[in-house]
Amino acid sequence: METITQMEKMFAPTSVAIIGASGREGSIGYSLVMNLVSGGFKGDVFPINPRYDSVYDLKCYDSITNLPIVPDLTLLAVPANVSNDTIKQACEHGCRMFINIASGFAEVGRRDLEWDMKDILEKYGARMLGPNVFGVYSAKASMNATFGPSVVKPGNVGLISQSGALGVALMGKTVTEGIGLSAVVSLGNKADISECEALEYLGNDDITEVIFLYLEGSKDGRRLMDIAKKVSMKKPIIAIKSGSSARGALAAASHTGSLAGSDKIFSAALEQAGILRALNLEDGFGWLRAMAEVPIPSMDGAVIVTNGGGIGVISSDSAERYGVRLMDDTKMLEELFRPTMPSYGSTKNPIDITGQGKNKEYEMALDIALEDDRIPAIVGLYCQTATGDPTEIADAAISSIRKAKKKKPIVFSMVGGKGIAESIARLNMAGIPSYASPDGAMSAMGALYKRFRRLKVKSEEPEEFDMDIEKIKGIVKKTWDTGMSSLTEDDCNLILREAGLSFPKSEIAKDLKEAKKVANEIGYPVVMKILSPDILHKTEFGGVRLDLEDDEELEVAYESIMASVRNRFEKARVNGVLITEMVKDCTEMILGFSQDPSFGPVIMFGMGGIYVEILQDVAFRVAPVSKLEITGMIQEISSYPILAGARGKNLRDIEALADAVSRISYLSTHVPEIVELDINPLMAMDQGKGCLVVDSRMTIRGEVK
Amino acid sequence: METITQMEKMFAPTSVAIIGASGREGSIGYSLVMNLVSGGFKGDVFPINPRYDSVYDLKCYDSITNLPIVPDLTLLAVPANVSNDTIKQACEHGCRMFINIASGFAEVGRRDLEWDMKDILEKYGARMLGPNVFGVYSAKASMNATFGPSVVKPGNVGLISQSGALGVALMGKTVTEGIGLSAVVSLGNKADISECEALEYLGNDDITEVIFLYLEGSKDGRRLMDIAKKVSMKKPIIAIKSGSSARGALAAASHTGSLAGSDKIFSAALEQAGILRALNLEDGFGWLRAMAEVPIPSMDGAVIVTNGGGIGVISSDSAERYGVRLMDDTKMLEELFRPTMPSYGSTKNPIDITGQGKNKEYEMALDIALEDDRIPAIVGLYCQTATGDPTEIADAAISSIRKAKKKKPIVFSMVGGKGIAESIARLNMAGIPSYASPDGAMSAMGALYKRFRRLKVKSEEPEEFDMDIEKIKGIVKKTWDTGMSSLTEDDCNLILREAGLSFPKSEIAKDLKEAKKVANEIGYPVVMKILSPDILHKTEFGGVRLDLEDDEELEVAYESIMASVRNRFEKARVNGVLITEMVKDCTEMILGFSQDPSFGPVIMFGMGGIYVEILQDVAFRVAPVSKLEITGMIQEISSYPILAGARGKNLRDIEALADAVSRISYLSTHVPEIVELDINPLMAMDQGKGCLVVDSRMTIRGEVK
Repeated sequence: METITQMEKMFAPTSVAIIGASGREGSIGYSLVMNLVSGGFKGDVFPINPRYDSVYDLKCYDSITNLPIVPDLTLLAVPANVSNDTIKQACEHGCRMFINIASGFAEVGRRDLEWDMKDILEKYGARMLGPNVFGVYSAKASMNATFGPSVVKPGNVGLISQSGALGVALMGKTVTEGIGLSAVVSLGNKADISECEALEYLGNDDITEVIFLYLEGSKDGRRLMDIAKKVSMKKPIIAIKSGSSARGALAAASHTGSLAGSDKIFSAALEQAGILRALNLEDGFGWLRAMAEVPIPSMDGAVIVTNGGGIGVISSDSAERYGVRLMDDTKMLEELFRPTMPSYGSTKNPIDITGQGKNKEYEMALDIALEDDRIPAIVGLYCQTATGDPTEIADAAISSIRKAKKKKPIVFSMVGGKGIAESIARLNMAGIPSYASPDGAMSAMGALYKRFRRLKVKSEEPEEFDMDIEKIKGIVKKTWDTGMSSLTEDDCNLILREAGLSFPKSEIAKDLKEAKKVANEIGYPVVMKILSPDILHKTEFGGVRLDLEDDEELEVAYESIMASVRNRFEKARVNGVLITEMVKDCTEMILGFSQDPSFGPVIMFGMGGIYVEILQDVAFRVAPVSKLEITGMIQEISSYPILAGARGKNLRDIEALADAVSRISYLSTHVPEIVELDINPLMAMDQGKGCLVVDSRMTIRGEVK
Repeated sequence: METITQMEKMFAPTSVAIIGASGREGSIGYSLVMNLVSGGFKGDVFPINPRYDSVYDLKCYDSITNLPIVPDLTLLAVPANVSNDTIKQACEHGCRMFINIASGFAEVGRRDLEWDMKDILEKYGARMLGPNVFGVYSAKASMNATFGPSVVKPGNVGLISQSGALGVALMGKTVTEGIGLSAVVSLGNKADISECEALEYLGNDDITEVIFLYLEGSKDGRRLMDIAKKVSMKKPIIAIKSGSSARGALAAASHTGSLAGSDKIFSAALEQAGILRALNLEDGFGWLRAMAEVPIPSMDGAVIVTNGGGIGVISSDSAERYGVRLMDDTKMLEELFRPTMPSYGSTKNPIDITGQGKNKEYEMALDIALEDDRIPAIVGLYCQTATGDPTEIADAAISSIRKAKKKKPIVFSMVGGKGIAESIARLNMAGIPSYASPDGAMSAMGALYKRFRRLKVKSEEPEEFDMDIEKIKGIVKKTWDTGMSSLTEDDCNLILREAGLSFPKSEIAKDLKEAKKVANEIGYPVVMKILSPDILHKTEFGGVRLDLEDDEELEVAYESIMASVRNRFEKARVNGVLITEMVKDCTEMILGFSQDPSFGPVIMFGMGGIYVEILQDVAFRVAPVSKLEITGMIQEISSYPILAGARGKNLRDIEALADAVSRISYLSTHVPEIVELDINPLMAMDQGKGCLVVDSRMTIRGEVK
């Protein structure tokens, strides 16, 4: 809450100073003053620049030190090389909130300047947005503290952009598209304030109802998630996270200096946090329009109303693609809509009132769809006919929606030539989200349904387990202290046993004789595996022998392994072999985690064996994960039907798998000293028979505070 | 060629009669006459309707029989119930080419009317487009024989639409978007003329340079492919095939009565025929614009020129998504573009001239990109800045492209508010394909590159094989004549051996004693499989036993199989068992084909075992397939890396797999009596060791003429 109070100084200041204000029209220092004044900011504006007496008809001060008061917010429009001195001077004067417009910092390799900047700010307990930003707009203060567009339409959309140029362009786009803004925040290099503070503030801001976020990377993904989780329960967050391709990540790095990280993990994290991720600007903006204007549907079963069969068919395809389930109570639809169309029209959803349907029939069909309680959502499509006037259809739709007593989600698309663009604009200005392409309309409806489904999910705490964390940390520390960064097989097993995972029957044997004895106790067939702290990829070099059927096979395998070690790893320490029961009739899975630099522990679960790397049939989640999230994770992989007993296969112990994931999640968050864990394979046995760890690897690090 | 001569009567007639012409403004019969006359049609126009003396100032005849001449083209705008009589009368008068505008036929269940119609046409050797169409536009005859928009911009794009409403709307859209049309064909119910004739005609038409096709289904997919293959070598064909989802297919069926067929097969067929398939209208129209205006790139290595880092990053992501490889000769790019930008700009591609770059810098960067021979294609991006005027940038781009001596593919996108829509329109009108979304621009560039790659592929004939087709047909016929529609295991094997496929060592045994003898000859381990013409799913009921290691195991398995048969299939005929060498250390694949009602034989190849149905990692191709197409097919499956020896796995015999596919392709086209073949598994052995048929099924039909 303290942060939010401090952030109020940025979004609702009573006074703003502009260091580097300028009298030169077209300059940044001029635009900032002009936008503040002409935008109707009600507080005091203090231009500061020793070279001017007045800027934009306001008295201009020669230095912040001569200002009669301490401004709530200080904008910095001075060159990078004097930036830090200026900040220091302003802090001495008492300033505590800055927006640093200047560029020439990390994005051109001068990270050092930002480190110094951060030191100064910390010393004074001050906060700063930027550098390399175009400013902040805040509707509640009528404050346009940007050098962006001077005309802004106030509204309910909060816009946060890591890219300055894109932010300015999108600000402009909202004006021509009739989308109202509650706030705009340019993130730039994020030397101090990041998307986290901006999101938290807008999440608590009364007039912001939808948030649009453009990100190229996040330094603290974990914090972003925690904030987004809370905010997304209250209002939709739409994000574009670029840099998903290798080339894009490179471009992002040279743009705002972001490290893009793994896109798969970022994607999972955004989803877990309830953020709707758009893959392109068009979708993002299209969803934004819908979220800003119409409510979330109350249930599945959207209805398409169209005057053209072709776009109806196209939209049925896209409904499936975007997860919009269409109403299929054909009897009810026939009763409701037959009166709106000629005999050759179709009531089968798409409701096709045909090209004969003019504005009267269109309005009639919409009236019915809007009033009937069994219809939760409407996609209106219009295909321009030779004689019909699209603006009349638009007006009919507007009239229909204005007189409707129920407020339902509705989106529109109109296809054609003359008058179409105007009709779409007219619908949009009337608050009915409308799109040039039927696909765009359906994509927006899909986003509304995605949010509908998200809000239905109950939030659930991750499970707690009774693991001896101190003991596990002790095992890790012991190895780390010897200078090793990976655990031996038996240390891995010790930890996983402590975490509550199950193993095939198994025993260590020091030599061949003992190996035979153990194998006979366990019962053939068995697996033999070399025990050595120095050999990591045991399978690849032949250090694992499967399906040994009797003493004779065991002996051959033993000699061969030992010969191989002597040949290839002359100096490897060998602690004997591990004899294990041979696990058959099961499905090979993989389970593990790694510590992501931005998100912390990230769990991976999927199909095991060579398929992991080739088919990449794995799901990721940022830990900790609740049981509900784990179920989603298991069902997400393409090979889930194999676990669920498809094609006459046995049903596997999915419950045991879920339990294993939950335990690994707990381990990953409680023992951050384990940097990476791979259980591969984790054998999924038949239902009721559990799942067994067959091989695992752990890499570790020193103590994490 | 005969068809094309006949089709000239539709696209370049010297006289047109309109039966059902009307004097009532707004009616279809009126619009047809009006559009013909006001559109500037140079031939004679004859309205026909006993109720009028004149229509649109033209003399109106009371009957076709009283017309002084035989018109080249006859439009029918009479109700469905008198349609066939009218056609007959016109045919008697000598008319041989019709466009039947009326609806009320197959689309409302009256297929019978269309059958009669077809009979009449065939009797007179006449052809007809329709019914249920909005007409034809042909630029070369200045003929607007539609009741669609009266204003059409002539140009180089041929538009073929199965949906009338969508066709009309798209016609209108081309006008406002400045796309010129060479022809428009409304397909409707396709009682006679279909997309095949339309595509063939436009393929040979001089002024048509790009073809846009909207399809919901095809009655003769095979013929469509054959025509499209030829046409696409000369000019690009962009298609939207809707009805890809279950719901969409249903909607298509109730729209133009299409049977959608398997979308996967349709997709493969379009691709094989060189058709670019767009998934939505936006993409389709965007690609169309690019194909109509700019050349195909000459090599890989596009360059992005932008003034905003953010859209540069976004577009780098989409370049990867759309298969546009970006130039990465950083040294060359640095030398070329450094002078166009401030020090903090990036020459790394995206070339980011930064927000400081105004029209002068933008034009400079474009000039360089357009002139340098090492740069084959350009994606121009513009992000509106606070002070820059987008129309100036548009003008700069137009000026740059006009003075460029080289003609290169270039696409644009501009993002922002005021002036952006106008700037995009200005660029488009100047022939520079421009898009509201960066993603749209990159998608269009991706389509240009897709065509570039397609045109590089040499056309190759499928292989010929020396198979005894008569012998194979004899085997099939023998079974068919006994009343069975599926072959026994040994008949399957006989045919596949004749086709040149390889098998594990294998022999039939009549009883247990013989089975033991055979197994010892082949060498343990072996597989035992029941031989019965009455049991299809042998594996599921336990009729196959794997990995039998010795006489004892063989005996147990034999007794168990026989007991199982006696229990479950009391009346099944049993011809003994098949003893086969147990194939190990290989990859299970699936290979087969089925006879598609629209496309004929379609080959399927993919990953075998239970993964076929669960992961659906299979590729389809319409047979026959050339070696080159087979290579593409094998590499298309996600698990291809497993065959190619990934993760330390052995390299499999890919050549042998390709040979097997080629042989199966030959078989499928030469023995259409085999309706379906499934080889599952086909075992891919190590390189040089071939691939072996382990199990197969064939279903058959009677002789195909």
